[in-house]
Amino acid sequence: MRFHTRKWVKPEDLNANGTLFGGKLLEWIDEEAALYTIIQLENPKVVTKYISEIDFKASARQGDIIEIGIDVVKFGKASLTLSCEVRNKMTHETIITISNIVMVNVGPDGKAKPHGKTQIEYVVDRLK
Amino acid sequence: MRFHTRKWVKPEDLNANGTLFGGKLLEWIDEEAALYTIIQLENPKVVTKYISEIDFKASARQGDIIEIGIDVVKFGKASLTLSCEVRNKMTHETIITISNIVMVNVGPDGKAKPHGKTQIEYVVDRLK
Amino acid sequence: MRFHTRKWVKPEDLNANGTLFGGKLLEWIDEEAALYTIIQLENPKVVTKYISEIDFKASARQGDIIEIGIDVVKFGKASLTLSCEVRNKMTHETIITISNIVMVNVGPDGKAKPHGKTQIEYVVDRLK
Amino acid sequence: MRFHTRKWVKPEDLNANGTLFGGKLLEWIDEEAALYTIIQLENPKVVTKYISEIDFKASARQGDIIEIGIDVVKFGKASLTLSCEVRNKMTHETIITISNIVMVNVGPDGKAKPHGKTQIEYVVDRLK
Amino acid sequence: MRFHTRKWVKPEDLNANGTLFGGKLLEWIDEEAALYTIIQLENPKVVTKYISEIDFKASARQGDIIEIGIDVVKFGKASLTLSCEVRNKMTHETIITISNIVMVNVGPDGKAKPHGKTQIEYVVDRLK
Amino acid sequence: MRFHTRKWVKPEDLNANGTLFGGKLLEWIDEEAALYTIIQLENPKVVTKYISEIDFKASARQGDIIEIGIDVVKFGKASLTLSCEVRNKMTHETIITISNIVMVNVGPDGKAKPHGKTQIEYVVDRLK
Repeated sequence: MRFHTRKWVKPEDLNANGTLFGGKLLEWIDEEAALYTIIQLENPKVVTKYISEIDFKASARQGDIIEIGIDVVKFGKASLTLSCEVRNKMTHETIITISNIVMVNVGPDGKAKPHGKTQIEYVVDRLK
Repeated sequence: MRFHTRKWVKPEDLNANGTLFGGKLLEWIDEEAALYTIIQLENPKVVTKYISEIDFKASARQGDIIEIGIDVVKFGKASLTLSCEVRNKMTHETIITISNIVMVNVGPDGKAKPHGKTQIEYVVDRLK
Repeated sequence: MRFHTRKWVKPEDLNANGTLFGGKLLEWIDEEAALYTIIQLENPKVVTKYISEIDFKASARQGDIIEIGIDVVKFGKASLTLSCEVRNKMTHETIITISNIVMVNVGPDGKAKPHGKTQIEYVVDRLK
Repeated sequence: MRFHTRKWVKPEDLNANGTLFGGKLLEWIDEEAALYTIIQLENPKVVTKYISEIDFKASARQGDIIEIGIDVVKFGKASLTLSCEVRNKMTHETIITISNIVMVNVGPDGKAKPHGKTQIEYVVDRLK
Repeated sequence: MRFHTRKWVKPEDLNANGTLFGGKLLEWIDEEAALYTIIQLENPKVVTKYISEIDFKASARQGDIIEIGIDVVKFGKASLTLSCEVRNKMTHETIITISNIVMVNVGPDGKAKPHGKTQIEYVVDRLK
Repeated sequence: MRFHTRKWVKPEDLNANGTLFGGKLLEWIDEEAALYTIIQLENPKVVTKYISEIDFKASARQGDIIEIGIDVVKFGKASLTLSCEVRNKMTHETIITISNIVMVNVGPDGKAKPHGKTQIEYVVDRLK
């Protein structure tokens, strides 16, 4: 799994217990999944269709740095299934794992559309 | 199920497809679940522990009004399990349903703590 | 008066005295008034025209939950006059009351346009 | 009246009619009134107590620049009453005027406290 | 140099050291430079092209009020070069100075376009 | 240079020309520089002291994905000098480069404090 985007836990990201608000974390994960999908499918129009169960294993506090990792589970015809792990950057402690996030490739009409991709590609190779 | 909080879908809530960003919706749901739990358990310190699978059934567009409904599934010893439905306010079309959101009551030390509640209470009755 | 939308007072909503910032509260009220009007008039294009005097009776602190109630004062030809009360959800203490908020129904040209409504309607009845 | 703070109307400041959202404007005015009061009273702890009726005379569109003017109406014992005008920076068209905004000086206990000021002062004179 | 826009340093503007986050300050400066340029060039389409080195001389803390001053260095053919100073409103202590911010006037095609201005103008004179 | 954090250019990140607002980009860069420094120096309290001149080479549009790269220029006694490049993720076109960003390690008193580091370290090695 490759970890890219890092987030800094700030006062506006906390719940009333002073720990990272779960909803904020889900927002960050969904954005990262969308970015990853857009890059892989080379289509800016993608939507989230399904997220499997989410178990909050640990939390994070203000000032903590977390990083979000994404991996590919499966290339569907019009979809891309991802897995995700969020961990504390400094300790590598797992905060959350999600087994399946199904992203769907959509066409100009907003409906699912085959994307023609079957494996992970790196931008650096495309640009060769 | 009782629907309370309403949200107005604004430009900053959209994904690249021009529909409501899934991550934003999850943030709203988690906040509503937290508020509901705080009111029921009469304790401002609650955290999200688990969210069951999420299926995005329909979407919403800019200018749409959505409303978030919460129901109680089970009172645990230190937890409260909720279910959630988000629907379009004007058409009552379901946007998302979540069967189980487990919220945990925590003490001053940040650890799970029994809450002593066993059924839904209304603030109006408490104030009598 | 029916109370719907609930807000959680967070760090970014506070003034320098550590209490709920008045301007934030007014923003929440104006949004709720707009949503209420859109639902009643079945027109997404409404604007705020007038707000009567505002007396801040009590304040709220971080972590408090407040709820916003709206009632109809009068159906005008192209307008809808509302009253508003904001109270603390847990204690029912009144934070603010506003006697008249005049919302105006506008047409595609941005000008006032008759809305043809004369009484409160419920979405559930419209959908029958 | 002296006009200081300028705001740029951005997409996130618009209502569903594509014009400046009234609630946002009220938030900006309340913040400007608080800043003005803090500077005059040399006390960072001030709260909004009262705002007289608000008539939205004109609106603003995305990309417009507005400026907020504040004047002193009266120095009370523990309060400062201000008036406010918001206008379009490029055309000087009035968007809103408010006759009375009562700001209250509060002590460390959060209660009203005499401020000892009786007239407008300029920081440049204080620093001489 | 004329100081206009004032900002109130809030919790969401702080870095992990509890002082004003440098990135936030740069965002405020860039917005003020853009506003100043739009007003002078009477064209809403301007972009930032260059910012000379930035030395953070002092910081600001939560609750501080800062003010942003802008001056014109040079009118180019399609550009406007500004200088900027940010200072603490109450103490006039300098927080940051920037010698050159080059803003470019752009046409409908997004390319640099001569603006025809050669000196500072005041809106009040234009409206005579 | 290693590119980590990715950002999605959204409506709220645009200037009046419909391209990525320079101030927003500077905010993202400063945050990324702070995160990088915190990770390297293993101290959450760091502040931005200096940023060398900034030349905006290209822009980005709504929906573009950009990535922020950071490299170490020099380990000072109490400082860390970084360089930065921001590029378009899909085309690798350079948007901005900054030669020197000086971050300072501060102690509990807010003053510069030696950090004892002399070379880049990887968290994965620290955790062995």
